[in-house]
Amino acid sequence: MTYRLFIANKNYSSWSMRPWVLLRALDIPFEEVLTPFEGAGQQQAFTHFSPTAKVPCLHDGEQVVWDSLAILEYVAEGHPAAWPGDRAARAWARCASAEMHSGFAAIRDECSMNCSLTLDLDTPSEALEKDLTRLDILWQEGLEAFGGPWLAGDTFTAVDAMFAPVAVRIRGYGIELGTPAMAYAERLLAHPAVAEWIEQGIAETWIDEPHEADCIRGRRIIEDRRQRA
Amino acid sequence: MTYRLFIANKNYSSWSMRPWVLLRALDIPFEEVLTPFEGAGQQQAFTHFSPTAKVPCLHDGEQVVWDSLAILEYVAEGHPAAWPGDRAARAWARCASAEMHSGFAAIRDECSMNCSLTLDLDTPSEALEKDLTRLDILWQEGLEAFGGPWLAGDTFTAVDAMFAPVAVRIRGYGIELGTPAMAYAERLLAHPAVAEWIEQGIAETWIDEPHEADCIRGRRIIEDRRQRA
Repeated sequence: MTYRLFIANKNYSSWSMRPWVLLRALDIPFEEVLTPFEGAGQQQAFTHFSPTAKVPCLHDGEQVVWDSLAILEYVAEGHPAAWPGDRAARAWARCASAEMHSGFAAIRDECSMNCSLTLDLDTPSEALEKDLTRLDILWQEGLEAFGGPWLAGDTFTAVDAMFAPVAVRIRGYGIELGTPAMAYAERLLAHPAVAEWIEQGIAETWIDEPHEADCIRGRRIIEDRRQRA
Repeated sequence: MTYRLFIANKNYSSWSMRPWVLLRALDIPFEEVLTPFEGAGQQQAFTHFSPTAKVPCLHDGEQVVWDSLAILEYVAEGHPAAWPGDRAARAWARCASAEMHSGFAAIRDECSMNCSLTLDLDTPSEALEKDLTRLDILWQEGLEAFGGPWLAGDTFTAVDAMFAPVAVRIRGYGIELGTPAMAYAERLLAHPAVAEWIEQGIAETWIDEPHEADCIRGRRIIEDRRQRA
């Protein structure tokens, strides 16, 4: 039985990106089912595959796994390489992943992911500054403690997949972090699975106005990589 | 090496409650280190044991595990009974736990946990109604799918620990759910580990004004179980 991964627009859906990138990075076969966003409000179409009407959602035969972090753990049961093999690295990776899952609210709210746009962030809010300071410390800690080049050691694992959309935001909003964190963000963007997602996101022809507005917020657009008619 | 679990006031700290109740329910020895809240703002004292200055935080020798859900997974590595043994039940339990970890914002924001108080909730907000409807569906689904009496089968596991503070809120704010969910909330409150936490919370003499104000919000206090001077 092949996994079926339900996702939304690659250009916008940072949560969809996480398990997709992990499955691709680990060469785990899956069928992708993409349902585009429908503009503002409840996503009615998502209720057909997810009990919370959210993406991503993984179906494995009858089994429905409807939360991002739970998907990573579910995949890891069959594919232990999804987490670092070292116990300390694994504990750290799970903490950092869970912190991303419930935290970094300002990064998520103020810097909505858009694979196609480069924007001028201007002055970050106090909440965003705080999140970025914490992110910088967290990434540097992982890279130092486990030797890199990935966040929890020498292989790309679920914690890297969790932070892949943050690398898209760093580039898209011109965010500056410390040298080790910036180098790590570049490595993330260059990872084949991450690069493939971004390329497919840019190639999409759907434009979802609420997501566009949420990215722009009066900011100056420096570049739009989409080929518009 | 015994686990050291860093927590805050039992009366208020719903996140501290979750791993504490799980460790107690599974009879896993641990040392409790309680640091009370310091009023409004950043909790400076929490920076001494947690990189995010949040509770709970688990120390296992040198290993620092600083997120609630990551603590449950960390404990489960050494104590597999922390999750259901059945694969489908375990996947469901992880999804429900992760949904609690990142979701149910209105329950968390509008019905702050207070083990001592019974309040008159009056009319719930639309957001709270929506969260309660989802909670009711989720609990009923687990109880039906895995046969009860616990959320994912016949043993108390991490997913029950995740929802234990919700049972405190249901009683404290007089929330009404469907019959199976109400019966489950009663079972949670009667579980020895949950009952022990609540009893110790009521016995605390610290009063944290921001938490008190957050619970009361102009609501009528029906009962305060604390013995005040």
